[in-house]
Amino acid sequence: MRGRCSRPRMMSQNQKSIGVFDSGLGGLTVLREIHRQLPGENLIYFGDTARVPYGNKSSATIIRYSREIVRFLLARDVKAIVVACNTASSYALDAIRDMTDIPVLGVIDPAVRSLTHKAKAGSVAGLIATKGTISSGAYEKALKGNHGSQQLISKACPLLVPLIEEGYAESKAAELILRDYLEPLAAAGTEYLLLGCTHYPLIAITILRLYPQFKLIDSAEETAIELRTLLSDRGLMRDAQAASVELFVSDMTDSMRALQQLFFQSNVDKFEVAQVGDDH
Amino acid sequence: MRGRCSRPRMMSQNQKSIGVFDSGLGGLTVLREIHRQLPGENLIYFGDTARVPYGNKSSATIIRYSREIVRFLLARDVKAIVVACNTASSYALDAIRDMTDIPVLGVIDPAVRSLTHKAKAGSVAGLIATKGTISSGAYEKALKGNHGSQQLISKACPLLVPLIEEGYAESKAAELILRDYLEPLAAAGTEYLLLGCTHYPLIAITILRLYPQFKLIDSAEETAIELRTLLSDRGLMRDAQAASVELFVSDMTDSMRALQQLFFQSNVDKFEVAQVGDDH
Repeated sequence: MRGRCSRPRMMSQNQKSIGVFDSGLGGLTVLREIHRQLPGENLIYFGDTARVPYGNKSSATIIRYSREIVRFLLARDVKAIVVACNTASSYALDAIRDMTDIPVLGVIDPAVRSLTHKAKAGSVAGLIATKGTISSGAYEKALKGNHGSQQLISKACPLLVPLIEEGYAESKAAELILRDYLEPLAAAGTEYLLLGCTHYPLIAITILRLYPQFKLIDSAEETAIELRTLLSDRGLMRDAQAASVELFVSDMTDSMRALQQLFFQSNVDKFEVAQVGDDH
Repeated sequence: MRGRCSRPRMMSQNQKSIGVFDSGLGGLTVLREIHRQLPGENLIYFGDTARVPYGNKSSATIIRYSREIVRFLLARDVKAIVVACNTASSYALDAIRDMTDIPVLGVIDPAVRSLTHKAKAGSVAGLIATKGTISSGAYEKALKGNHGSQQLISKACPLLVPLIEEGYAESKAAELILRDYLEPLAAAGTEYLLLGCTHYPLIAITILRLYPQFKLIDSAEETAIELRTLLSDRGLMRDAQAASVELFVSDMTDSMRALQQLFFQSNVDKFEVAQVGDDH
């Protein structure tokens, strides 16, 4: 390594921040878990709140938006990128890996790998997610890629995100809608249920009240575990007592401050608007 | 007026199309009503499906997006513009009128004028809409502008749009959520209820089942009535037996074809993707 004087702005790789992004603020459940498991890491989060949700958009649009955000994170010299959005993890991972040599993690593979380790071979596993994630077939592809023999039964649950964001996660209405969504999965003998959307950990308690037989796999937790292993293996871990958490969003309203609290559940060092893409 | 030969490309003003836009496809309930009341008019609709919804975005963003769409419609030489989106009607009408001399109608004023004509002076009237529309205070402003003395009680109903789009408009879950939203309005003695979101006509039947005492004011219907009067007064009506309906969206997915049927309820001549704004 060069001396300080000759290259004063050079930061050693492990001191750099980790970049995390999502279509909105739901990915903060992933950020929270990374912060919990890796409290010494500086974190930069981008939520594309001006263009949320991605789940109902075409793959071409999702890839374009994701590339714009990755350029924003790379400009801040991050050492790794976590795509904390199932829709973007479904469609945009390859396009992002074409842009950089730093490690890029999605939220799908870690959850699927956990399933293949925990669930019996040939057993029935459930997957709930947004329409975009389900129709992408990304979980089936990841299961195949990880040589999992589990049978995946999928159900798109488009009403769960608005119910969670509006504080209805534990309501009677949410129970009725969850029963609609989950009854076929229970009837098929689901043991493990993959929560394929970053919002869903916040409705887990209602799911388990209705279906206590389900064992939930939370991609936020699994992704943070894989990130920790990856940083450790490559000597990229930042060994510090304190770290900063900075949030950027493409649009800011009062309700976003409430969602930040709902999803991240603690204070941050920065929470401000930043623009990405060619249209700004 | 000039002769045909000297200016061959000049189309007489009344032959031109009417431009209608919304953040998404909900504004098709307004388009449908215009088509029903003015079957001789050629209609061009733009739905900003790549950036829907507007309701949770800042006013600056909503104005920017609206101006981009209006440029798209003006390039197609429309004779009038209908802002078939409550959020854009709340924030962007002045900015749009600064761009053009053709008539520009929002969906708020027609509904409010209808209320001032129908409801008793000083009576309690209800308003349901998205968060963005409610927090804009646009209905209160329009009521004042039209010298209405009714007392407006507002309730943001953010879950109704997803419930409607997912086919839950007549479900038990929708009833529970509607009761949460509407009970305070009923308790306050609401007689007339303004449906302040273009989606809401599709949940009207459930509202009336729960609260048969409410008289609903549908902005789609009222806006089409005002548009008809305006075109007639200015000699801008196109007197024809048949007309074309063309839909453009900024992003297309399979579910948008389903929503087009849900909201417009008949076939169209064109339904395709078009880009607006500087980012394309």
